[in-house]
Amino acid sequence: MEEKINSKFKDNKKRKINRICNKLENKWVKSEDIVNILENIIEPFDRVCIEGNNQKQAVFLSKSLNKVNPKLVHDIHILQSTLILPEHIEVFENGIANKIDFSYASIFGKKLAQLCQEGKLKIEGMHTFLELYARYFLDLTPNVCLVIAEKADKEGNLYTGANTEDTPTIIEATSFKDGIVIVEVNEVVDKLPRVDIPSDWVDILVKSPLKTTIHPLFTRDPAKINETKILMAMLVIKGIYAKYEVNRLNHGVGYSTSAIELLLPTYATELGLKNKICEYMMINPVPTLIPAIECGFVKKIVSPGGEAGMNLYVKSRPDVFFTGGDGTLRSNRCIAQLVGLYGIDLFAGATLQIDIYGNSSTATINRLTGFGGAPNIGGNSSGRRHISNPWKKAGLEYQKNDDEIFKGKKLVLQIVETFQPSGEPSFVEKLDAFEVQKKFQMELPLIMIYAEDVTQIITEEGIANLLLCRNLEDREHAIRGIAGHTPVGLKRDIKKINELRERKIIIYPEDIGIDRKDAKRDLLAAKSIQELVEYSQGLYLPPKKFID
Amino acid sequence: MEEKINSKFKDNKKRKINRICNKLENKWVKSEDIVNILENIIEPFDRVCIEGNNQKQAVFLSKSLNKVNPKLVHDIHILQSTLILPEHIEVFENGIANKIDFSYASIFGKKLAQLCQEGKLKIEGMHTFLELYARYFLDLTPNVCLVIAEKADKEGNLYTGANTEDTPTIIEATSFKDGIVIVEVNEVVDKLPRVDIPSDWVDILVKSPLKTTIHPLFTRDPAKINETKILMAMLVIKGIYAKYEVNRLNHGVGYSTSAIELLLPTYATELGLKNKICEYMMINPVPTLIPAIECGFVKKIVSPGGEAGMNLYVKSRPDVFFTGGDGTLRSNRCIAQLVGLYGIDLFAGATLQIDIYGNSSTATINRLTGFGGAPNIGGNSSGRRHISNPWKKAGLEYQKNDDEIFKGKKLVLQIVETFQPSGEPSFVEKLDAFEVQKKFQMELPLIMIYAEDVTQIITEEGIANLLLCRNLEDREHAIRGIAGHTPVGLKRDIKKINELRERKIIIYPEDIGIDRKDAKRDLLAAKSIQELVEYSQGLYLPPKKFID
Repeated sequence: MEEKINSKFKDNKKRKINRICNKLENKWVKSEDIVNILENIIEPFDRVCIEGNNQKQAVFLSKSLNKVNPKLVHDIHILQSTLILPEHIEVFENGIANKIDFSYASIFGKKLAQLCQEGKLKIEGMHTFLELYARYFLDLTPNVCLVIAEKADKEGNLYTGANTEDTPTIIEATSFKDGIVIVEVNEVVDKLPRVDIPSDWVDILVKSPLKTTIHPLFTRDPAKINETKILMAMLVIKGIYAKYEVNRLNHGVGYSTSAIELLLPTYATELGLKNKICEYMMINPVPTLIPAIECGFVKKIVSPGGEAGMNLYVKSRPDVFFTGGDGTLRSNRCIAQLVGLYGIDLFAGATLQIDIYGNSSTATINRLTGFGGAPNIGGNSSGRRHISNPWKKAGLEYQKNDDEIFKGKKLVLQIVETFQPSGEPSFVEKLDAFEVQKKFQMELPLIMIYAEDVTQIITEEGIANLLLCRNLEDREHAIRGIAGHTPVGLKRDIKKINELRERKIIIYPEDIGIDRKDAKRDLLAAKSIQELVEYSQGLYLPPKKFID
Repeated sequence: MEEKINSKFKDNKKRKINRICNKLENKWVKSEDIVNILENIIEPFDRVCIEGNNQKQAVFLSKSLNKVNPKLVHDIHILQSTLILPEHIEVFENGIANKIDFSYASIFGKKLAQLCQEGKLKIEGMHTFLELYARYFLDLTPNVCLVIAEKADKEGNLYTGANTEDTPTIIEATSFKDGIVIVEVNEVVDKLPRVDIPSDWVDILVKSPLKTTIHPLFTRDPAKINETKILMAMLVIKGIYAKYEVNRLNHGVGYSTSAIELLLPTYATELGLKNKICEYMMINPVPTLIPAIECGFVKKIVSPGGEAGMNLYVKSRPDVFFTGGDGTLRSNRCIAQLVGLYGIDLFAGATLQIDIYGNSSTATINRLTGFGGAPNIGGNSSGRRHISNPWKKAGLEYQKNDDEIFKGKKLVLQIVETFQPSGEPSFVEKLDAFEVQKKFQMELPLIMIYAEDVTQIITEEGIANLLLCRNLEDREHAIRGIAGHTPVGLKRDIKKINELRERKIIIYPEDIGIDRKDAKRDLLAAKSIQELVEYSQGLYLPPKKFID
């Protein structure tokens, strides 16, 4: 029976590996052979998945891919969650690849748009992270993947360390679908601290001759948190977290959410909220959470990736973080995004623009940045069936009449100052996203979170509780009412605002007993990076840029 | 620096393991010691995750858990996706556990309800699979998990074989959160066919003295497919798959979707739909797909679990199925459910009851079965951002006015005969789910898929295209129009039906050129299990119950 199988359909992988078998020692190849290996393994029109996370990238393999002969390797279709290195763009300029499915283009949003207009690149799809991962397992399975591991042993077992991120997801999709898994490895050791990926999921390994660095993308210096952010944090804690009993949540990255984190041990504790809110979080191990962890406020954290300088501190708190037997963080973006969709009751994020109905976007003219994870974490799925107090309370406020079948609702906050640091207003009558859509003839506007999903907008003026709005007019006036001196705010209607305050749709600080004068930096549990280090008992080791 | 860490917070796991270290040989314990081991490892109020999949269960560990002394082990909180063995219920009757978070209770829906009413059990939450997995990584991380592997080597590396299902998800959540992973193993070998779980994610192993069987839960005998199912399959293929160009989808399990699968090589091919529809599927490796795979219709399949008798066949088609280096299926329910949420454009399912607005439910009085995966696969997430033709076309039909921001929509079908095999009508004015809600004082009714998410209902009468309905009245009459001789159907209004046919909301077979007389068993690519075996060239080995 067995002889019938393994015939024609297994050949593709074998054929490719056979071409390079003289260069393979076990599964290892020499770094100087890597360009040749890629030329033999990647065929025209192949789907190639490049590991490009927020925090770590397969740098050596990305550079090497750009050195292949485009006469041999061309028309390849890149699958990549985050584009972050110049090499991620050059591969299109060099005529090696001409299609992409991606999630987030970081600083390369403008460049991507250019390449499309020059006809060098076709964007096949823009996805949130989870959508892209899902498609890796269906119609977009990689023929080849180029990934990175911190360490490997000689057999090829991999240790991904604190920044596991996308590695397990990419390798599972490729390896179990007969694709070829190529791994660059920073260090080869006899015994791994732990095994993150078993060697038989891996085909080819190469020791990278490059040094790679993890950048502290998610670290916010408490010294830079101003009193406006503190006021907004007080509004969020008292006006939302306490009211809805929010205990499972995600914070986006920014000074506003850092301010909330640093107010948990002080302001929130004084309000008697310890053991009641913010016990469970999905978030990278950001240093501004150290005081809240040390005082027992935040109890458990699941992370999509790591953060520079936090490894020893994380190791000291296996009760809080997911860690391996070696004590190092185990992160996993796929799982963290899943938690962001179905496990949490609240997402606190920020944005560049909000329109008068509550649609928000980070798209600006000439850039195609993509979405990352925000639409997923800030979105509702009608598939959710488990109940929690915040989900129920939000659902009850949102319910328009008693006949409706009751459903809960995820709380989705947009915390923005009325003006961006650039001086541009955060509130606009119409999003730039619609202009971008026209310009690039896209079928969907680049909206990050749809109005129906946003439940509260918080500015230095107050809270707009969109859950209680009963029609578009309510929404519009609620938003104008907290939009301050922006053109959108100046069009406010005092009569309507008074009505909305009565209905608790607009909530100014004084309405919930918050005195603006109390929003002082004294409230921050730590006022500097140095104080975070002290809270950590010296286990947080801030990157150089924060101590110079 | 290192000495500061690993102190108080790592103690819990060490303390537990130390208690049994005299019984551990490497990580192995004797099967006769297992009850004592469980008594020492599980503490009162612990969260214990029991592997209970659709297809495989940790039988030996479940039986052993029921033998612990309830004076030592009590008040435990069970986390379990599927309850399927008597032992999964006895643990509550025996006073060992008193809380549960689960997804699907299979045949034990009634028993669960009883236990709740007797005060022996508190249902903490009912979830879809993905929600429960998400919470394993946030607020419901297991202190101990009891899982099963097909094989292990002496070091404790695990081989889960074709039915990987929940194992990686449960172990990742437990192992990396300092919980204790206990594995029952069917066979101990020197060298594994492949490594599914590395040994350092595992704490305790025991060779099971029991024989376990995989039941063919998802196999449907083509001999039992009647002409009504064939007619409905024709309606779905021509009226929906062809119209919307559905290429990425999930089929529920039932004769209706089996009929569709068996019509792909015949009816769908004659319609010129090969290479246009149904190329990518999320589904268990069901035997009724063999003809469609062999004729090159279905090209890729990702599976939540395996299916009895299909292992050799799967091994012969690594181009279609996800398989390991050993050729055996790699299934993964978490990933498959993720594909079901974000990777597919259509879900074709069935239900017990549909109300006049399109809400559907499998709940009946006295049973609390839970949801499994249907609400997730049949639900929309506002987080989706990538575009496909079916999603776009469905979204355009659903859009009520041109001012709305355009969004796509997942196609969600309910394929039901107007009467269930029991003789009960499939269509009702009001779902039993609301009675159940009252009876058990639940906060949500047990609705499987909400009306807003269902896009088409298909019966032997025709198709109701709910996408084009503009108000509740439209929906009600569309549904009555295809509800046949049920009380709901008898209340139809001929004038309204004619209007809805004009508007293509009600589609009868003749409206799309389908002659009811053509719905013959001759159209089935295989008419019996034996013909499926022939299609597979003898590689499908049907379980005994299908060949007797």
